[in-house]
Order: sequence, then structure tokens, then C-alpha cells
Amino acid sequence: MEFDLTAHLKFSDDLPLGADAELRKAVDDANDTLFVKGVPRDSAKEAARIIEWHAHANELFVRIVSGRYARAHDALLRFKKALGTTLGAKYRIGVRGYDVNEFTIKTEVETQVRVELPFVKQASYDGKLLTLKLAVGEQEIEKKIPDRIINLIEEKTVRQLYGTKAENWELLWESPQKESHFQQDPTLALQQRQWIRHGVSRGQWIFGPQVTKVFNTFVEIIEREILARLGYFEMIFPKMVPWEVWKRSGHARGIYPEIYYISTPKTRDPGYWEDVEDYYKVTNEVPLELIRQKIDDPIGGMCYAQCPSFWPFIQGETISQESLPIKVFDRSGTSHRYESGGIHGIERVDEFHRIEIVWVGSPKQVTAEAKKLEGRYARIFNDILDLEWRKARVTPWFMAQEGLIETQDDRSAGTIDYEAYLPYRGGRADSEWLEFQNVSINGDKYPRGFNVKTQKGELWSGCSGIGLERWAAAFLAQKGLDIELWPEKFATRIKELPEGFKFL
Amino acid sequence: MEFDLTAHLKFSDDLPLGADAELRKAVDDANDTLFVKGVPRDSAKEAARIIEWHAHANELFVRIVSGRYARAHDALLRFKKALGTTLGAKYRIGVRGYDVNEFTIKTEVETQVRVELPFVKQASYDGKLLTLKLAVGEQEIEKKIPDRIINLIEEKTVRQLYGTKAENWELLWESPQKESHFQQDPTLALQQRQWIRHGVSRGQWIFGPQVTKVFNTFVEIIEREILARLGYFEMIFPKMVPWEVWKRSGHARGIYPEIYYISTPKTRDPGYWEDVEDYYKVTNEVPLELIRQKIDDPIGGMCYAQCPSFWPFIQGETISQESLPIKVFDRSGTSHRYESGGIHGIERVDEFHRIEIVWVGSPKQVTAEAKKLEGRYARIFNDILDLEWRKARVTPWFMAQEGLIETQDDRSAGTIDYEAYLPYRGGRADSEWLEFQNVSINGDKYPRGFNVKTQKGELWSGCSGIGLERWAAAFLAQKGLDIELWPEKFATRIKELPEGFKFL
Repeated sequence: MEFDLTAHLKFSDDLPLGADAELRKAVDDANDTLFVKGVPRDSAKEAARIIEWHAHANELFVRIVSGRYARAHDALLRFKKALGTTLGAKYRIGVRGYDVNEFTIKTEVETQVRVELPFVKQASYDGKLLTLKLAVGEQEIEKKIPDRIINLIEEKTVRQLYGTKAENWELLWESPQKESHFQQDPTLALQQRQWIRHGVSRGQWIFGPQVTKVFNTFVEIIEREILARLGYFEMIFPKMVPWEVWKRSGHARGIYPEIYYISTPKTRDPGYWEDVEDYYKVTNEVPLELIRQKIDDPIGGMCYAQCPSFWPFIQGETISQESLPIKVFDRSGTSHRYESGGIHGIERVDEFHRIEIVWVGSPKQVTAEAKKLEGRYARIFNDILDLEWRKARVTPWFMAQEGLIETQDDRSAGTIDYEAYLPYRGGRADSEWLEFQNVSINGDKYPRGFNVKTQKGELWSGCSGIGLERWAAAFLAQKGLDIELWPEKFATRIKELPEGFKFL
Repeated sequence: MEFDLTAHLKFSDDLPLGADAELRKAVDDANDTLFVKGVPRDSAKEAARIIEWHAHANELFVRIVSGRYARAHDALLRFKKALGTTLGAKYRIGVRGYDVNEFTIKTEVETQVRVELPFVKQASYDGKLLTLKLAVGEQEIEKKIPDRIINLIEEKTVRQLYGTKAENWELLWESPQKESHFQQDPTLALQQRQWIRHGVSRGQWIFGPQVTKVFNTFVEIIEREILARLGYFEMIFPKMVPWEVWKRSGHARGIYPEIYYISTPKTRDPGYWEDVEDYYKVTNEVPLELIRQKIDDPIGGMCYAQCPSFWPFIQGETISQESLPIKVFDRSGTSHRYESGGIHGIERVDEFHRIEIVWVGSPKQVTAEAKKLEGRYARIFNDILDLEWRKARVTPWFMAQEGLIETQDDRSAGTIDYEAYLPYRGGRADSEWLEFQNVSINGDKYPRGFNVKTQKGELWSGCSGIGLERWAAAFLAQKGLDIELWPEKFATRIKELPEGFKFL
């Protein structure tokens, strides 16, 4: 990797005669010591060097080249600072700033990825050699934009070569096989009985009294077996998620293709909307083009991952040790994802209902809590719902959602997916099982993103999402719709199903 | 009101020689009998007349003028039909259609309203006389667009002159005054105790464990005292509401200034979104302009009135009498309204939580059920929450939301609002009380809109929204935040409040 940068440093006053000697000394110091600080010994030849310079009036031109450490733009920052100290002491002249004239980066890549990026004015591949010419100024250098560009290209390369999720799947446990008397797609069976009906929008269902009772029985089981037993407190997390939250949670990196975007009116002045109403009242058609002009840019989207919205409650705070671990849950609303089209049942929906469990504490507390939850889920799936299921370690959910690649360093974070066998989909080995539950240790990701601390030691968090549609899809696919054939412990809890209403 | 319309009727073939006699007879019949059918005797001079006509080849030109009955465009439809019968029988010539050349409407208005409407090519006021020139064709006449334009102008006039809601408010009952030991704005008090924290988006709160427990205790009371006792079944209504639902529910007429609009991606192809992700990853800013280009026109909005989303479950069905009254409720998610800006507390929020009760049955059943609900609410507000409240008959909620004006004819529908006194706002007589509950009989509005029938007789519906933020705002404003000072029956049910977490 090669960096080649030319810049003009600007001073608060013209340099006096004889300042060249000072400048030469500063350049030599930079090349000999300043730029090699922190560079691994075996990478010494990678270090930055000023290979050209000349001064005139109140400007100093420099050309800095480097390999991977310290990169030319970092070297420029170091040099600027050192120069300020030197010239300030000697001549009372300050460094006012700099312009970057040219900034070229050359790097070997294993595959060609999209490189039309902000602040890249020119990019070209010559086989495996990628040459980037950046258009950056002082502000972008300060913000480490060049490093972000390099990182992004590396990330895209890895993703293109190795994909994201499918690679990481490690079976941890599997239940015995269970006989199933039922081989139907439960969604079709539910529709036949008129227990559910497709909503008017895509991937959306209206759940009638019978299946809502099934959902509620799941909720009662979760309350008794998990939330009350392990001591979780209910909270209400907002469901409209503004960009600010997704920037901190990391979701702003990668969920754009699946967001249900929210836009608000430019104003709620009734007069501003009179033409829209008039149009509708005359034509009975909603004037979409006109509305589009009258709403603002999207302010965010509907709940996608549920737990990010918890964090602003404790954002910027130092949590008392005695309050740890924090153990809360939310079930106050829907989540929305723009899923792939085509025919899906309740196992894959755009609008769904989830109980989200969140815990925050020391790494030890967070890890221990995850184990407890795993134990409780196993108890429910084995003893109450009698499911055929397995669990596997997978790429942490937020990495998948942000398009991040997992490395060995990330092993402090981890997601366990629970998968259920769906008899209607075919043989156990060949068919796709349904992810119907997860437990995640998220490391320090959220405390870091939302700037939450405790008195001493690291703060970690975990979360676990219980999707009621997914539980229903797994349970009903294996156990069918007849309460007499349901596992006794579940049937006992549900007692009886409501009658619903009859259509002629 | 004057209508003056000229049109060319087109025939399937040239008229034969001598057809003029037939045409003259048809015109006379129309003027003498066809156009006066159904016209009130004292409005006979309002009736339509063909005052000019001539035929050539396969066309007949007519000019029709009228007052209010039958309007010229209705007369044209009647005439076209009659002519088809006559010419078909005699000459086997059919009427293929017509062009409208000119269509002028003159009407007296009490005030000038906005008249830049679809299909109005010219509009002018001369004092109180409004002259409209329409640009309409056969399709618009068939769809009764001219009548919709007239109705809209009348509706706008009435609204401009008399306003909408404030006019209708009729006190039905009020509780005795209650002493209050608490004079604070409960939102400020909740924030001081760190029980709630403002969400990142406008009008949005994050509710901590203590206040969520208060909400949940309300829910338990509602379950026991209302839902279980009166036999309501829980369902799950969708929360993303597409235009189609609001067109049928009537909300498409008037809620535009307050919608949280939803737009979905034009595609979920990751490649399509790579530039957005790249931009974010390099700049750490979300590229709103770019996103705006990549999402579709809004498909609808987030839940506004909660019950419309129930109706597609039974849309187009004939409900068995034995299933009536249908009694269901939903509490599966949030509602969102773009409220006015400025500083508000939990009593006026953009994102809120509501249990929505819906019942459907004969007019008698629906009316009786509303009475039962009123009784149960009174029991809760008086005996358990010990509130100071009153109830009033107001303009039906959907009329207010659709910008409709109530007339005496609408008295089959009715909304009762429950209002609570808020001590922190000042004296009982001077200060604004908080609407914290309603019960509505919606007449046949929804069954009609969603085409739901029963075997015999009319089908009506009612709904009642229980806003948890509103209950909390009313209760906490009157009773404060200290459990020891809460009414005994409520304190007993809540037992104790969770501790929450401590910040340093």
C-alpha cells in the first residue's frame, strides 16, 4: 500500500530569512523519529517520509510518501503539530492550516469492488493494483476519511470474496427427532380455518382471536419461565427510530434495503394540505406525487432491531454498579422489515411482533445471563412446546445487519440462533430450518456506541429477540392446529381457544 | 345554482334521414317527463332542460341547463340512456358515448374558499357568485365528479364559516371535585425521578420500569374490569396502514397533516443500495437526498386510528348472526401522529400506546354495548382511579378526522369524550381539561366502507380507544407520583414499583 500526498502548509506570517535551517531540521526530525514512532520494526520501510519540500513567503510545500505505517496523512498531522511548536517558540509564527494538493493511494486488491466513493475524484484498476486519487482537505484528513476509504474497500473486498453470513454456522446442540402428525404449511392451514387473513399491505397478517390466544400463551410462558423467574423489568422502547439511534447502534451502516422509511409532513398547517385533500375528495385517489413534495426527507424508519431504542434511556450516563446487571424487556410494538417478495407465510413477514430482552452488565454478568437464558429457552422448547430444534453459533446479528465480517477478534460477541425443523418443507437434512429465536452477547458495542459507562470495569450487553410469529410458525408446523394434539403442558396452559366469528 | 352543459353524443352509425322527428320527440319527452322525475314539486323550475340541439351525421349536439334538480350532467345521463333505447329499437343505432364541450356551474357562496380543484379549468368569484368551468369527459360524469366538486365547495364553505370541532360539545356528566395534593406537571416530575426520558425523535418518550408498571396496572384493570367481564377477544391488527384501508375508513379524506408517512425501498437488491452504504461508511452521514430517490412514493402511514386495520379481516364477508356482536380488541403496537411542535409532555405525543376496543352488531347491540362500556369506565374512573372527570358528547371522532361537518342526520353516530381535570394547568373553569378516553358509535360507516354485511338488518359498529399515556397523564397529574398517596384500590393492585436503575 502506497500513499503519496502533497500539501501546502500555511503560516500566520511570512517566514523570516534563515528559517530554512529550522525547516530542514524539522523535516529531518520528522523523517528520522516522528514518523517512525509506533511503526513495527519489521515494517520500518513502510514509514512515511517527506521526500520534497520548499518554503516561500508564508507557505511550506511538502510531499509525503508512505506505506501502511504511519500513513502519509497521519504523518502530515504529526508534522504540522511539531512544526507549530518549533516555529511558535522560535518566531512566534503559527501553522494556520493546509491545503492538500494531490493525494494518491495505491493498493493491491484481491478482487475489484465498487470504488465510486465520496472524496475519491478518480479511481482505476490495473489488474490487482487499485489507484485512488482523493479530493480531501484539512477537515477530511482530521476526520480520518482516507482511512475510512481504505477500510471500506478492504471490507467490500472480503465480503465480495467470502460472502457474509452463510460461512459461519457451528452446531452447538440438537434435540432428538420428533414424530410429527402434521405436514402442512401452517399458514395455509390457518387461512383455511379463517384464523388469520392477509393484511392489505405486503408481508402483513391480521391475526384472529384463536391465533392471538396462541401468541398470548407464548407470552404467558415467557413471562413466567423467563421474565419473572430471571427478574426482568418491562420498559417501553420507542418504535420510530431516527437516524441518530441507528448511527450509534451501527445499523446506519447496512440496513437500507430493508427499512420501512418514515417521513413527516413539512408542516401540519391544514392550508398546506388543502390541495391534497381537495384532490382526494374530488377524484377519490390519493395524490402520491403531490404528497411526496410535501413531506420531508426520511427521518429514520420503523423499528428494525428493537433494542437500539432502549439505549438513549441510559445514553451518556454512568450506571451505578449496584444497578448492574440491568435486565429489561420491551413488547410495546411492531417491527418492520422490507422482506423479499413472493409468497411467504407467517414465518417471513414484513410486520412482526417480538419481545426483546436486553441486559447490561460486566462481561461476566452478561455472559452468565446469556447462559441462564439459554437454559430457560431449552426448558420451554423441550418440556413445554416439545419442539424439534437445534442451536448454532452464527455471525453476530448486528454484524450481519451492518454488513460486517467476523474475525477472530470479535469472539467476545456472539449470536446463537435457534432453528426449528419444519416438516412441510421436506427432509431434515435437505430442507431449510426456521430461525425462530436468538441469544446474543454484543460485547461493548452498545455501551460504546451510546457512551454508557459504569464506575469501573468494562460494560457489555446482550439481547435476545423472541419473535411471536416465528414461534407460532415453528410450533404450528410441528404440532398442527388441533388443540387435542398439542403437547399437554401447552394445551393445559391455553385451556381452550376462542370461537372466533363465522362467515356465511 | 345553475348548470349549463353542452355535449356531443356520438352514435354507432349515421342517423338516417327523418331521424330528426325521433330526436325531437326524445328531447320533448326528456324535458317534459324524464328530467322532472324525482324533482320536488316546489323546485320544478330547477329541473334540467335541453334548450338547444341539432344533429349531423353520427352526432347529436345538446345544450342542457338546470338548477339544483336534476342537474344537467345527471340529465345528460338519463337522456343518453333513453335515446339509446329509442334509436336502438327504431334504427338499430346505439349511443357510443359523448364529449362534453362546455360545462359551467354558477353557485352562490357565503364565503370564498379555495377552488383550484381537479377538473376545474377556470374558477372565478364575482362577489358571492362563483362561476366554475369544468373540464370533464364521460368518465368524470359517470363518476359524479361534478357533484363531488359541488359538495366539496359546500363543505369547505361551512368549515370556513363555522369551524369544525369546537362547536359541538355537550356536557353529559361530571364527577364531584376532588382535592389534589399535587400541582406539578407530571411529565416534569417523571423526568426528575428518571422514570421517563425523552426519545430521540419528537413527541416520543422512553418509559422506564416504574412508569411501565403503572401502564401495565392500567392494562390489568382494563382486562379484568372491561375486556374479560364484557367478553372481548384479543386480535392483532396491522400497524402499517396502506392507503386502501384509509380510503375505505374515510381517513384518506383528512389526516394528511398528521401522518407518519411510510415509504419502502424501490428494491432490496443490495447492489442498488451500495452507494448509500458507501457514502455513510466514508462520511458517517446518512445521504438523505440519495435515499429519497431510492424509495417509492409513500404506501400509507403508521397506525393513526387503530380500528380501521381490523376491518380487512371481515371485509367483503357476510357475518353470521350468531357471531354478533363481534367484540374484539387490539394492543399490539404503537400509534403515530405528527402533533404540533413545542414543548409537550406525555399528554400529547407523536408516538403512543392504546388499547383499541371494537364491536360490531345490530344498531341495538352496538348502542347497548356502548352503554355497558360507559358503565365500566365510570366504575374504573370513580372507584379505582378516583379521578375528577367529566364526559361530553362531541363531534364523532371520524368526522373530526375527516374534516366532516356534523349535521342532525349524523346523530346515529356519536362520540363521547372523557376529560380529566389537570390541576397543574390552573382553575377548573379556565384551564383546558385533558381528553383521555372516548367511546364512539360509528353507525354503519365501517360496515359500509369495508362492505361487511349480516344476514338481515343493518350492521353498525363502535370503537373505544384507551390511550395509556393519556390515562397516565390524567392520573399522575391528579394523584402525583408517590404510591403511598395513590387511591387505595389502585395502590393495592400495583403493589410496589420496581426500583429502576441508578445513574451517578
